Amino acid sequence: MKRIAILGSTGSIGQSALAVVDAHADKLRVVGLAAGDNAERLAGQIARYQPRVAAMATGTANDRLARLGVSSTVLVGSGREGLAAVATHPDVDVVLCASSGTEGLEAVLAAIEHGKTIALANKEVLVMAGAVVTEAAHARGVSILPVDSEHNAIHQCLHGRSPTEITRLILTASGGPFRGRTASELKGVSADDALKHPTWRMGRKITIDSATLMNKGLEVIEAHWLFGVNASQIDVVVHPQSVVHSMVELRDGSIIAQLGVTDMRLPIQYAFSYPDRWPAPLPAIDLARAGRLEFDQPDTAAFPCLALAYRALEAERSLPVVLNAANEIAVARFLEGRLPFTGIARVIEAAMDAHQPERVSTLAEVRKVDQWARHRAAEIAEKVELEV
Amino acid sequence: MKRIAILGSTGSIGQSALAVVDAHADKLRVVGLAAGDNAERLAGQIARYQPRVAAMATGTANDRLARLGVSSTVLVGSGREGLAAVATHPDVDVVLCASSGTEGLEAVLAAIEHGKTIALANKEVLVMAGAVVTEAAHARGVSILPVDSEHNAIHQCLHGRSPTEITRLILTASGGPFRGRTASELKGVSADDALKHPTWRMGRKITIDSATLMNKGLEVIEAHWLFGVNASQIDVVVHPQSVVHSMVELRDGSIIAQLGVTDMRLPIQYAFSYPDRWPAPLPAIDLARAGRLEFDQPDTAAFPCLALAYRALEAERSLPVVLNAANEIAVARFLEGRLPFTGIARVIEAAMDAHQPERVSTLAEVRKVDQWARHRAAEIAEKVELEV
Repeated sequence: MKRIAILGSTGSIGQSALAVVDAHADKLRVVGLAAGDNAERLAGQIARYQPRVAAMATGTANDRLARLGVSSTVLVGSGREGLAAVATHPDVDVVLCASSGTEGLEAVLAAIEHGKTIALANKEVLVMAGAVVTEAAHARGVSILPVDSEHNAIHQCLHGRSPTEITRLILTASGGPFRGRTASELKGVSADDALKHPTWRMGRKITIDSATLMNKGLEVIEAHWLFGVNASQIDVVVHPQSVVHSMVELRDGSIIAQLGVTDMRLPIQYAFSYPDRWPAPLPAIDLARAGRLEFDQPDTAAFPCLALAYRALEAERSLPVVLNAANEIAVARFLEGRLPFTGIARVIEAAMDAHQPERVSTLAEVRKVDQWARHRAAEIAEKVELEV
Repeated sequence: MKRIAILGSTGSIGQSALAVVDAHADKLRVVGLAAGDNAERLAGQIARYQPRVAAMATGTANDRLARLGVSSTVLVGSGREGLAAVATHPDVDVVLCASSGTEGLEAVLAAIEHGKTIALANKEVLVMAGAVVTEAAHARGVSILPVDSEHNAIHQCLHGRSPTEITRLILTASGGPFRGRTASELKGVSADDALKHPTWRMGRKITIDSATLMNKGLEVIEAHWLFGVNASQIDVVVHPQSVVHSMVELRDGSIIAQLGVTDMRLPIQYAFSYPDRWPAPLPAIDLARAGRLEFDQPDTAAFPCLALAYRALEAERSLPVVLNAANEIAVARFLEGRLPFTGIARVIEAAMDAHQPERVSTLAEVRKVDQWARHRAAEIAEKVELEV
């Protein structure tokens, strides 16, 4: 029996994770649940899964939870402290970090210090603090199992192969809803257009990141930290069908690929079951029925966010923190209708240009750069907004 | 330094194997070479690679070799005995069996008894005597590393995974030169047409087998013996680009695939290097450039040989021996222009219908059925010939 804590249990990944628990109730037990502000949904989850501990983003949200009948003995705090308390409960074996943005960072580090296995669905954690997190995991001998379908695919392709065998990681990208459009055709697109992802159903922030290809850029940075490869060894290929989830090129030129249905229950279950693999209540892939799999180069002229992410990774130091923070600010404004789609990359690039890269070897240093970048990106976004 | 014996060194696979030796002269040494009747080419190979032992299919061929200046101390016999002597030389670590048809069977068994690692490029060995060969290898603790690109791909996909994880093997088939044609459109095709394979350059027999899809049928049977899965767990999917070399479906529905260029040096090198993996002097695959990978169901109405192979495997016992022997006879006659293309399957099916399946647990029993089937297939072929 593996005992699970889910940070972000009311979100898209969190709910899929609970579906995996339902399918494998004999093998998985929910010990901890943490959510942002959806008290009603969390109260329902607590009633059903009876975790030992739970927490929400704010004291106010926790109060709502208490008014919905959740016992105060279960509530172990709010905000980052609450997340950390849920993640480090002594009964927890595996922490699924699926909280949004960078809120889960401290909790992931605390869980690592407590020797918990990390199932990581939140790429911002590694984009912001890859060095801090991977060093801590290495020092504590803790595994970080990727839940992002691409990195999960790479983990499956590697399957214990020696790092010396690996010459290249190839991340697939669906291309998002705007694949094939030119830069000028992207100027007028709305948030509603951008939220229509062709193959994956996900939360709003990540769906916009998919439309800009920033999601793939963040994944490139994440892959660097998870698999210890340089930016020059990570390629992105557009694959609209999202059947091939990613690939690994080995030193003889051979490529190992993982294919699967587009359902997050698969990578979540893999992370929960690893090193074992359990049956899944999902349809198999029928390639003859799928007919064809297409591959194409990403268009970094129309989708400059991908190139910005490579630039941030190559510079290392604090630039990925700026990239990520500026992106969060810009995407939020785009969703509010206060920034055009093409303004997202402009805000990020301007924030990166304004930043003097520095070493970030502690969480405090990361948070400081993050705050600076959010502030600066907001200033820049105001200007871009005025220009439109 | 791995010391290699190559059975069938003057053929297509044999020459590719020597190219692999050339590329890795610091890691591979040729100890033995055996060939059919191309004395000139073998003499050249002996002069270049200086093996300890060599042999040809007949005494006459060996004599020609001697007249070409090859020292008689190198020549260790002819025919099946010669092959076995080359394969079992005490200095040999790995035996590449790439001799044509079923001639290599005794040599492979002898090599297994001597504890040699087997790199198997000859699928007839397992189709005819899968039980005998795999039992001997198991008893002796010897590895059989598949060189056929499909089985080599599956070996790479498995990479130490537990057999309990595997739900299905998916062999890809290029579909051959006649993909998309109906049964009636295949009646008049010539040997020249059939020898034009779209993606792989191979010997004549296997190229015809690719055109009839019998090659895939033999591979289904081979896969059964190599990986211990039933006929119902082995699927064939037509994939004209021959980029995906085969796939494994795992118990959660996830598929692991191996992709590579269509060059036999890759699987040969993998078998020689295993469990290590060496760089290869071959171009990498550029999927964006490849553009698309297509998949389709095989058409067993137009290509009945594939269905015949499944039937033979499901019946087990001696039926695969009959399938293989009748196929060899029929293909030889087709190449001689004495049998129409569609007659190949008719000869095989009639030979299978005429056979009473029996247990074959020794090589002698296998050879007996083989002889019966060849004789019977030749008789049947005469009749089919007359009908045309």
